Amino acid sequence: MAQNILILITNDDGIYAPGIFHLKQALQSLGNIVVVAPLVEKSAVGHAITLSDPLRVMEVERDGAFFGYAVNGTPADCVKLGSRCILERKPDLVVSGINQGPNTATNIIYSGTVSAAAEGAIMGIPSIAVSIASFTKKEFAYAGKFTRQLAQTVLQNGLPGGTLLNVNVPALPEQEIQGVKITRQGKGRYEEAFDKRTDPNNRVYYWLTGKRMILDHGDDIDDPVVMQNMVSVTPIHYDLTDYSFLEELKQWKLPKP
Amino acid sequence: MAQNILILITNDDGIYAPGIFHLKQALQSLGNIVVVAPLVEKSAVGHAITLSDPLRVMEVERDGAFFGYAVNGTPADCVKLGSRCILERKPDLVVSGINQGPNTATNIIYSGTVSAAAEGAIMGIPSIAVSIASFTKKEFAYAGKFTRQLAQTVLQNGLPGGTLLNVNVPALPEQEIQGVKITRQGKGRYEEAFDKRTDPNNRVYYWLTGKRMILDHGDDIDDPVVMQNMVSVTPIHYDLTDYSFLEELKQWKLPKP
Repeated sequence: MAQNILILITNDDGIYAPGIFHLKQALQSLGNIVVVAPLVEKSAVGHAITLSDPLRVMEVERDGAFFGYAVNGTPADCVKLGSRCILERKPDLVVSGINQGPNTATNIIYSGTVSAAAEGAIMGIPSIAVSIASFTKKEFAYAGKFTRQLAQTVLQNGLPGGTLLNVNVPALPEQEIQGVKITRQGKGRYEEAFDKRTDPNNRVYYWLTGKRMILDHGDDIDDPVVMQNMVSVTPIHYDLTDYSFLEELKQWKLPKP
Repeated sequence: MAQNILILITNDDGIYAPGIFHLKQALQSLGNIVVVAPLVEKSAVGHAITLSDPLRVMEVERDGAFFGYAVNGTPADCVKLGSRCILERKPDLVVSGINQGPNTATNIIYSGTVSAAAEGAIMGIPSIAVSIASFTKKEFAYAGKFTRQLAQTVLQNGLPGGTLLNVNVPALPEQEIQGVKITRQGKGRYEEAFDKRTDPNNRVYYWLTGKRMILDHGDDIDDPVVMQNMVSVTPIHYDLTDYSFLEELKQWKLPKP
């Protein structure tokens, strides 16, 4: 593909994470790839943006060569600042990842990876978020290959304004992947718990912990598809209106001034 | 209403903000009100949660009396930790606010105020986010009164699981409020810009800035309703699936393993 295709890549695991290195390698042949990513890990930051602190940009090397630009901010900051100030023009595509750990079901609202791609979509740039479904296995190869092919398709077809693709890939070698499914977002979430401890000065503190609950079944929903060793591709957008409840709510007797 | 109604209130402007003081006063007569709010301002944190740092809880006084619990975390942390560890049981209602500044259109994805109510909704607790449509005017009185009345209605009627009400109130005295409308989320957003500066050590830094763009018209959308001096009530949920694009995407020729 032509060198005048401009792709911004970012993540929430930070510019030194393995996933973004594999992503850059995988997309290299598609055009001019510019990395703009958080200097440090920004997982579970949701759609945070930095309003109260100045943002700085640092050039970062990996393996002895220039790798990309690190920003002391969030994934959403990276897409905004990258598109407006670092790249010479608005990119043709934003790809965020490859995240270590699935971004599925209700949990995507906490995801910095997805929020970066959402930021791209809101700016009118076709955008993809990609995650592998393991927090520990470094099995990025097929996720990289799939993302390159999907990116080519998105560059050809475009995406509706405001819509991004949220991709979750099993952490398996290609020959064990069972297929690809278009899915909707599931209803699973974390059942959180807090681990209460006492510090050496006798002061109480809490660690947030919890377990992932998968509440869905069916081969059109993100989590069950990934658990069947298939790639899940979910189109998501940011109209949060609950249309199914809108009409009922209009029947409520609401307080009037 | 009975004293056995338990209401958790929080915000993103921090426990010392004026809006949460007015909110507590307004809801006082509804039952047992417990404040669990961020120690410092956490605006634009989106749906961030704190995984990498311990959370601590501090008792806070205002005007010489116990006011509530401050947490060194985000609004979403406050709802999780409040419901699980501070309150004696899961509350009957979560109310987040009163935020200084509107939470409307695409901008709600950055909102700590809305994310706190969303956290309540995800936990299965009826939840309300409330904002006044000014960053500067301290006109909280009608927002407080409306929220108390709406809270009573929600306590009676309940809300669908996973759905919260996002309320925006003009920053005006009651006699100037023109009515109440059930709305959907608009498409307006910030057109961001960066103010590039050089620090005294000759290093470049950037401030995120920008202007609110209102892209919608019509009296069923949040921003235009508030601009007509009416209260906007939008039911929102966290199924981000773009169902309108789902079928088209199924027709795409996607890469296969």
